[in-house]
Amino acid sequence: MNYRMIFYIMGQILKSVGLFMLLPIAVGFIYGEQHVVASFGIPFLILMLIAAIFTIRKPKDNSIFSMEGFVSVAASWIAMSAVGALPFVISGEIPNYIDALFETVSGFTTTGATILSDYDPDTMIWKMSRACLFWRSLTHWLGGMGILMFVLAIMSSNDSRTMHMMRAECAGPKVGRLVSKSSFSARILYGIYIALTVSETIMLLLGGMPLYDAITHACSSAGTGGFSMYADSIGHYNSLYIEMVIAAFILLFGVNFNLYYYMIIRKFSLAFKNEEVRVYFGVIIAATALITLNVVHLYSTVGETLRHTFFMTASTITSTGFATADTAQWPMFSQTLILLLMFVGSCAGSTGGGMKVSRILILIKTGVKELKYIVNPRAVATVKMDGKPVEKDVVRGVSSYLILFLMLMATSLLIISLDKYSIEESASAVITCMNNIGFGVGSFGPAGGFGDLTALSKVTLCFDMLLGRLEIYPLIMLFASQKR
Amino acid sequence: MNYRMIFYIMGQILKSVGLFMLLPIAVGFIYGEQHVVASFGIPFLILMLIAAIFTIRKPKDNSIFSMEGFVSVAASWIAMSAVGALPFVISGEIPNYIDALFETVSGFTTTGATILSDYDPDTMIWKMSRACLFWRSLTHWLGGMGILMFVLAIMSSNDSRTMHMMRAECAGPKVGRLVSKSSFSARILYGIYIALTVSETIMLLLGGMPLYDAITHACSSAGTGGFSMYADSIGHYNSLYIEMVIAAFILLFGVNFNLYYYMIIRKFSLAFKNEEVRVYFGVIIAATALITLNVVHLYSTVGETLRHTFFMTASTITSTGFATADTAQWPMFSQTLILLLMFVGSCAGSTGGGMKVSRILILIKTGVKELKYIVNPRAVATVKMDGKPVEKDVVRGVSSYLILFLMLMATSLLIISLDKYSIEESASAVITCMNNIGFGVGSFGPAGGFGDLTALSKVTLCFDMLLGRLEIYPLIMLFASQKR
Repeated sequence: MNYRMIFYIMGQILKSVGLFMLLPIAVGFIYGEQHVVASFGIPFLILMLIAAIFTIRKPKDNSIFSMEGFVSVAASWIAMSAVGALPFVISGEIPNYIDALFETVSGFTTTGATILSDYDPDTMIWKMSRACLFWRSLTHWLGGMGILMFVLAIMSSNDSRTMHMMRAECAGPKVGRLVSKSSFSARILYGIYIALTVSETIMLLLGGMPLYDAITHACSSAGTGGFSMYADSIGHYNSLYIEMVIAAFILLFGVNFNLYYYMIIRKFSLAFKNEEVRVYFGVIIAATALITLNVVHLYSTVGETLRHTFFMTASTITSTGFATADTAQWPMFSQTLILLLMFVGSCAGSTGGGMKVSRILILIKTGVKELKYIVNPRAVATVKMDGKPVEKDVVRGVSSYLILFLMLMATSLLIISLDKYSIEESASAVITCMNNIGFGVGSFGPAGGFGDLTALSKVTLCFDMLLGRLEIYPLIMLFASQKR
Repeated sequence: MNYRMIFYIMGQILKSVGLFMLLPIAVGFIYGEQHVVASFGIPFLILMLIAAIFTIRKPKDNSIFSMEGFVSVAASWIAMSAVGALPFVISGEIPNYIDALFETVSGFTTTGATILSDYDPDTMIWKMSRACLFWRSLTHWLGGMGILMFVLAIMSSNDSRTMHMMRAECAGPKVGRLVSKSSFSARILYGIYIALTVSETIMLLLGGMPLYDAITHACSSAGTGGFSMYADSIGHYNSLYIEMVIAAFILLFGVNFNLYYYMIIRKFSLAFKNEEVRVYFGVIIAATALITLNVVHLYSTVGETLRHTFFMTASTITSTGFATADTAQWPMFSQTLILLLMFVGSCAGSTGGGMKVSRILILIKTGVKELKYIVNPRAVATVKMDGKPVEKDVVRGVSSYLILFLMLMATSLLIISLDKYSIEESASAVITCMNNIGFGVGSFGPAGGFGDLTALSKVTLCFDMLLGRLEIYPLIMLFASQKR
């Protein structure tokens, strides 16, 4: 393994994270928060120092394969979470380091599960400085598209081998590269990402949302994260316009970004015929309809019902975790449907979490293929997506991913079960973290509650969130590689 | 498809079930229960009539393939459950037909989930005639090894093609035939099954259990079913000897029966080197140890703790569902472990339920293989069992089985969630039925509670129990085949 190159990539990633820390410092100055110089300045210097050591000279041998890509991404995500947690600790706003780490991992992985519990009862704002609240949302934004992807976008590498690295951070069963050069691919993706985020900010401003609120909520939506500055989340605004803008944008952020590129280059048929996206929107419509039928008696009008069911469906399937309704009050059928949507997740190549629609589709088709095989072993059945056969490696990889996902889920559940919660609550905590949603049931409802977990549980869930966001392999590689 | 042959096989199966109905009639006479003539006589005549029509002449074309085997087995199991429920209804002991059907399906599939709720508070015996209580246990015994297997054992067919049929009722990822002729294989398996059942009956008699109790509990153990004549199950006897005898026997019934054959023909190395059995006993020891550590503070001595943890571990992993302890009082860690054991299940080719240890092993090895592949795509990794590579078809089949299992579980859960229970309870009902265990959590604890479900939920769970016992494919084939 090319360790020098791994450190070099890590250095690049940590330098970028460090530079992004200048933004909350600026926010702190605007709001007259004196502590930001120390709170963000120290971690900024730490990151810059590590980055300087790691990138002091470019390795002569810059060859990288899957292994190097996976290991450097996994190590970087752990390192940037470890240092990214420091502002919360230094500012004293989250004094316990494990709590701060949980919050930061939850941020970067776009989970949105929070350990916060203190809020101002008048304003409903979490008791936290503007700089730190901004940093929470910024971690969502950085984690959404991926920080390595950002590094690739700004690096002027001609090296097509960096595709190996994109695979580590990109979600879904396989990575379709847009163009032959990965740095150019990354630049296109980030361009679309920034354009969508800015659009959402403007739309929110038009709805009367203050600038600070608009930027932080746009960042949180973009990463399909779910952190809000308000303890009562998006429900705080009680504005149909704002809810619909956010629901629409998180759904857009849950679409495979390649599709936007196809639209930009005017290959509309490629975009609109995409099977995954059609199923994604089909599931959203079906789930919204079913839940609406199931809960319509709880609200005064059908319109009011639709408003909540559509928002919560969008928030769940995209793994965002914003809330406008307390789903615990809904009938069990709706709650079960919400639970199943958590596993489905959004499209591959989006900023959303979960198993991804394309994986679920391939799994269902694999199951159906097996049934056909049992009926007639001589019939040739293949798994197809978008009318084309899916390579056997991908089909096998998706089944294996499911197996590993379930194995890790069972192991995590066993560890969390040592804590004080019911099986249902523990399971929901594991499911919500592994799928990067942000809220579970009972003690882990939309209002948070993750702060009451033991340190062991918190660290386990941190690991689960990273496993979910990086889709298992990079982290396993990181720990397996040390044996070699 | 050879429909004539399907009906012919069905006729043979239903005739056998009919003949077994003579046993509870005999039991009824012994206990002076007058109603048994009508209660069991009418269904006996119905079965004989159907059998006579279906087997009026042997089809000239007696060719059968997987499809015919699967369809005839699935149709037979549904038919024998439908008619097997009649004694409960005619006797008025379970007046509601859906309830009686649930109880009968639960019996044949060796699930052991009961809709009964009325028991005599003095004796703790369910309010039911001896004949019907005997029939409950007998359905376990018949369903355990499989009624088609019984038909094969008594048929003097020379046709090696009947292997296709064995596959439909035999549990596990693949069927290893003992000898070339399936009728001879079936006879060996039934011989071992009867010998073990008789041994258990004798051992229970030696422990002071009355003959009736010993026979019914031996039948329930043999099928790893879980029906007991007592509302407080095996805990009723409060006898260490009886608990240990039953725990030992259900563990033996959870072992692949081929192993006993190997021991009979003195191929001990084949028996003792079997990977699945070693893992099966390893998991039992590990789970017992972990649960003991976790619950030791709840009992007065370590011995007392071990007695309960060993019994409940054995009862769960073999999918029997007998109870001596209320696991709801155990800490969450132990409950979670019990839940995971439900999915693991016993060995392939045993009378136990669950996913089967060999499937879980193949799944884990598939996951590990994928990790190796990710690290080094050029490395040749194969999934091995007992030191030999597992055929690709089997590996793929096991992954597909998991996918179908989860899809059916999710669908069932959605239907059950329309009922009045919490997600946790609903999920436990589906899990316990699909894995043929017999008890879940909350309302569905060891004391039963399935009677309070709606008819829709009961029918869904009946379907789940059959799916679990016949391992999905036969039932799907039955319904898919009608399209052709």
